[in-house]
Amino acid sequence: MLTPISYQSCTVTGGFWENRQQINRSVTARAVYERFTDTHRFDLLKCPSRDAVEWTPHHFWDSDVAKWLEGAAYILAKHPDPWLQERAEEAIADLLANQWPDGYMNSYFTVTPAETRFTNRDRHELYTAGHLMEAACAWYESTGQDAFLKGVCRYADLIYRIFVEENSAEFVTGGHPEVELALVRLAQTTGNQKYFDLAKFFLDQRGKNAKDGPLNDWTKLLYDMSHMPLTQQTVAEGHAVRAMYLAAAMADMTEDPAYRKAAGAIFQNTTKKRMYITGGLGSQHVGEAFTLDHDLPNATAYAETCAALAMIFFAKRLLQVTPRGCYADVIERELYNGALSGVSLDGKSFFYVNPLELEPAFNQTNMATTQKIKRPITQRVEVFNCSCCPPNVLRVLASMSELLYSVEEDTLFVHQYAASEAEHQGIRVQTQTRYPADGRISIQVTGAKTAALRIPGWCERFTLNVPYDLKEGYAYAWVPADGKILLDLEMKPVWMQTNAYVPDCANKVALMRGPVVYCLEGVDNGSRLRNVLVDPNAPIGETESDSFGVPILKTKGLYRLPGEGLYGRFQNLHQEKELTLIPYFAFANRGESEMYVWLNYKLP
Amino acid sequence: MLTPISYQSCTVTGGFWENRQQINRSVTARAVYERFTDTHRFDLLKCPSRDAVEWTPHHFWDSDVAKWLEGAAYILAKHPDPWLQERAEEAIADLLANQWPDGYMNSYFTVTPAETRFTNRDRHELYTAGHLMEAACAWYESTGQDAFLKGVCRYADLIYRIFVEENSAEFVTGGHPEVELALVRLAQTTGNQKYFDLAKFFLDQRGKNAKDGPLNDWTKLLYDMSHMPLTQQTVAEGHAVRAMYLAAAMADMTEDPAYRKAAGAIFQNTTKKRMYITGGLGSQHVGEAFTLDHDLPNATAYAETCAALAMIFFAKRLLQVTPRGCYADVIERELYNGALSGVSLDGKSFFYVNPLELEPAFNQTNMATTQKIKRPITQRVEVFNCSCCPPNVLRVLASMSELLYSVEEDTLFVHQYAASEAEHQGIRVQTQTRYPADGRISIQVTGAKTAALRIPGWCERFTLNVPYDLKEGYAYAWVPADGKILLDLEMKPVWMQTNAYVPDCANKVALMRGPVVYCLEGVDNGSRLRNVLVDPNAPIGETESDSFGVPILKTKGLYRLPGEGLYGRFQNLHQEKELTLIPYFAFANRGESEMYVWLNYKLP
Repeated sequence: MLTPISYQSCTVTGGFWENRQQINRSVTARAVYERFTDTHRFDLLKCPSRDAVEWTPHHFWDSDVAKWLEGAAYILAKHPDPWLQERAEEAIADLLANQWPDGYMNSYFTVTPAETRFTNRDRHELYTAGHLMEAACAWYESTGQDAFLKGVCRYADLIYRIFVEENSAEFVTGGHPEVELALVRLAQTTGNQKYFDLAKFFLDQRGKNAKDGPLNDWTKLLYDMSHMPLTQQTVAEGHAVRAMYLAAAMADMTEDPAYRKAAGAIFQNTTKKRMYITGGLGSQHVGEAFTLDHDLPNATAYAETCAALAMIFFAKRLLQVTPRGCYADVIERELYNGALSGVSLDGKSFFYVNPLELEPAFNQTNMATTQKIKRPITQRVEVFNCSCCPPNVLRVLASMSELLYSVEEDTLFVHQYAASEAEHQGIRVQTQTRYPADGRISIQVTGAKTAALRIPGWCERFTLNVPYDLKEGYAYAWVPADGKILLDLEMKPVWMQTNAYVPDCANKVALMRGPVVYCLEGVDNGSRLRNVLVDPNAPIGETESDSFGVPILKTKGLYRLPGEGLYGRFQNLHQEKELTLIPYFAFANRGESEMYVWLNYKLP
Repeated sequence: MLTPISYQSCTVTGGFWENRQQINRSVTARAVYERFTDTHRFDLLKCPSRDAVEWTPHHFWDSDVAKWLEGAAYILAKHPDPWLQERAEEAIADLLANQWPDGYMNSYFTVTPAETRFTNRDRHELYTAGHLMEAACAWYESTGQDAFLKGVCRYADLIYRIFVEENSAEFVTGGHPEVELALVRLAQTTGNQKYFDLAKFFLDQRGKNAKDGPLNDWTKLLYDMSHMPLTQQTVAEGHAVRAMYLAAAMADMTEDPAYRKAAGAIFQNTTKKRMYITGGLGSQHVGEAFTLDHDLPNATAYAETCAALAMIFFAKRLLQVTPRGCYADVIERELYNGALSGVSLDGKSFFYVNPLELEPAFNQTNMATTQKIKRPITQRVEVFNCSCCPPNVLRVLASMSELLYSVEEDTLFVHQYAASEAEHQGIRVQTQTRYPADGRISIQVTGAKTAALRIPGWCERFTLNVPYDLKEGYAYAWVPADGKILLDLEMKPVWMQTNAYVPDCANKVALMRGPVVYCLEGVDNGSRLRNVLVDPNAPIGETESDSFGVPILKTKGLYRLPGEGLYGRFQNLHQEKELTLIPYFAFANRGESEMYVWLNYKLP
């Protein structure tokens, strides 16, 4: 088992992620707070009389607040901010003031007389409880204040009593997983094994208990992976976020080989058959769900921001058990693509759905009916009715430094490359790099004998200034006497393809440079960009970009002229066109525009 | 104005259509009758007590029966068939026995106490009335028996009283057009101008009358083109079948320039911006509707069989007013592609939806929910719950000889080429051809000075044995003394493309040979056929096919090998592959299989 160096012991000191964390602190934390205030999410914590208000609360508003609190905790650990601290403390005080005498804590159920607690699997009660637990753990770690933590422990005790001791709830496992991984964390933070046992209870019961029916009339048990015991499952099914939160908790059962095996199988299935090149998960809007192996439509991709983030939670747990490059590679894929695209460059607005193609002109389908073929929105918005993604991005960006390093005995693992400093039990590390602007990385290590450096899956050639053994995606290098390690990952633009089983990418290529997926956007390239053919052999020029933190790429391709008539004889109407590609994470930041990740190519 | 030579005066004598008409008579007419019997559509005509039956009638079942009766009438005009005649007479007797004293005629409303007549625009009452009128006209023309015709006239009189004289219905124009064109036909058959006036009343009122609201809570007035007066409309909107039936009636208003202009504009918009290469109409299943110009997705095409047939009704009316090749070209496109694909080669089973791509492996999307992304079915079925298409195919195939010729003074127009004989007021014509197996056509004419022969839009070169003037798609030839005209239309396989405004066909080509669109089917070519690249310059071989009536085409293309891993660096994994293409109308006749009309190509 590796021990991750926590966000408290690791600081990002510059470059790509320092910039994004700075925006996250100064803009996103405030913007999410303000939009949640506008939409009464914080008002709900004060439990007004239902008759007195004009707004209708949503049943998981508390989880939105909890994720914001968790993000605030991570920020405050390193960056004192009285404005943020005051508002977080007020929200925590409100939550605790309204906790029921028996420990129950859920503002929506408290103010909604029509709802009876623990009767409906699909009301996100345990999910919301889990987010409160995660927030309380983060708040305690960051501030040392334990009132919130004690509060959620009382709630966890109540859940234990009702679900384990009394078996008196009308269901046994929650429709939306989250409480499982949160209970593991609560057990770690408090040292109380009971919470771990409760997490394992929920995992063990899933798919076994007759009390747990389908969530509603259009879902099947498969939808939340309740169709069979988890240890027998090998495929990521149903709602993508739920599947990944559940798989993360399975990966937390580190001592149980059956869960380790099942979690590993689900990881392999997801990443090898059901994941977009951006790391996006979930192929359709109906149910926000996985569908079938290789069914990865680009324009109608769901690829929810929360699902990309949840894959980070899942992979980081697998990585601590077994240091394999494939796990850290996926974390990197999510960080630079499918997760990061969820927030605008200015940190104020968000995507819930992250498609790989956008054609705004055709988004207004079906003018004749109010029902429409569902397509993703074309521009990020500041808050959603169901606004789980924005505070989820906030908390992950605020704590992303915990993804960089782990320690196991006298080995320092470097999973992700970012300018940073960290210290853990006598091991110190300082990394200097412009990564992913380039692949040159200088690492200064003291206190460790070995530095295990991830060699990313995208990297075909690298140099290292010290001897090393390569094993499962990591170069295990002897730390030299002066502690100086120089790693150079060759980073060039590369055209990628899928295997021939993915219908939507047949005879198409996508451009990557290092871990970053690129896209062709209308604002740079005009319209009707499906008519572009790229030339996989043409040179690709790089132009530095301060706004993106990675270069803009330019190449030459072909573009088909409009032609006349709806149908006509084939003519070669292609002419040369300079193409400008920008990182996918930065799309839809300059107005409404076409966008494509996968492009047709001219066969060399 | 041209006068079409009716199905009574024109007989198909051999070749492609003689074969299809023979199957239509001997198989389809019986199969539709049997399936409609199984599903109680004929039982409903006998008006059983609602309490005594286990089945629930559909509100337009009478229209299904009416179209079957109309088809039977066309068949019986030339081919006596006691079995068919007996069953048709029984159905007509049942309909008449249950006609209300005031003339009302609708079995569903008769037996359904919960329904009040003429109160709901969306219950297809006038639509059903229209189909009864068309059937009665056909029955009278074919058999000389006038009881049915008299019956529907009494019903038409009732409609006139209620809608025009009393204005006492709760709506003014029907949600599903059909009665308008049927009333024009009833006026022609009976010589009673009142029915024409009623048709014009319905057209004039559409989009003007405040009584006519949206059909239900998810449709807009646009859905049935009730959003503005018809004479101001220029675009085919909403439900594709409704739009085309309505436009056909507009084209029937031959004396009114405002309707002629609007009908012409709608035809241009439809055929130049909203029609699949197969003639398919309707781009989405939601509302079975048109969407936006150039929005022509292939896998999720709706392209209802009835919409293709309705376009024939529309275009044949425009053609009689103004003999332009574009109208007859569209009729030909529908006949050989989007309409004909609606019935299996054996005549027994039917498509309602005619997609341009099928990938059966991905049709079972969304295993986790009962809601699913709607995709077309992959195999024809014998009857639908909403089974409008099968009897519609039946009646059009049975009467298709009326599409071949028209007469205007001493000019004989030949619109469609088929082995056939016809006679009209002293003009006789006999055509011998294997068309569309090849393009050689021999026509023997007597009694006409000029033969106006359509030169199809697809034809780039032709030879004609007599002098001619070319005008709007017709070669006006002087009929020689011996009456012998020899036309040779050069017919070669040609790769077609769309203009660059159609997203789904960007950088793709489709193969046509003469009027017939071809497709690549899995049963001949294997699977994952999106990975095929055709070579537009490769030779294309032709192999005669008795089962299709047109040749099978073979060419060489490239096919991408599967490759390894979900994502990898671009490699040219293409290898040469022989490709077999069959006519689109014949797809899905040899088991479940992939199918593609539009194919990626290798740039020459």
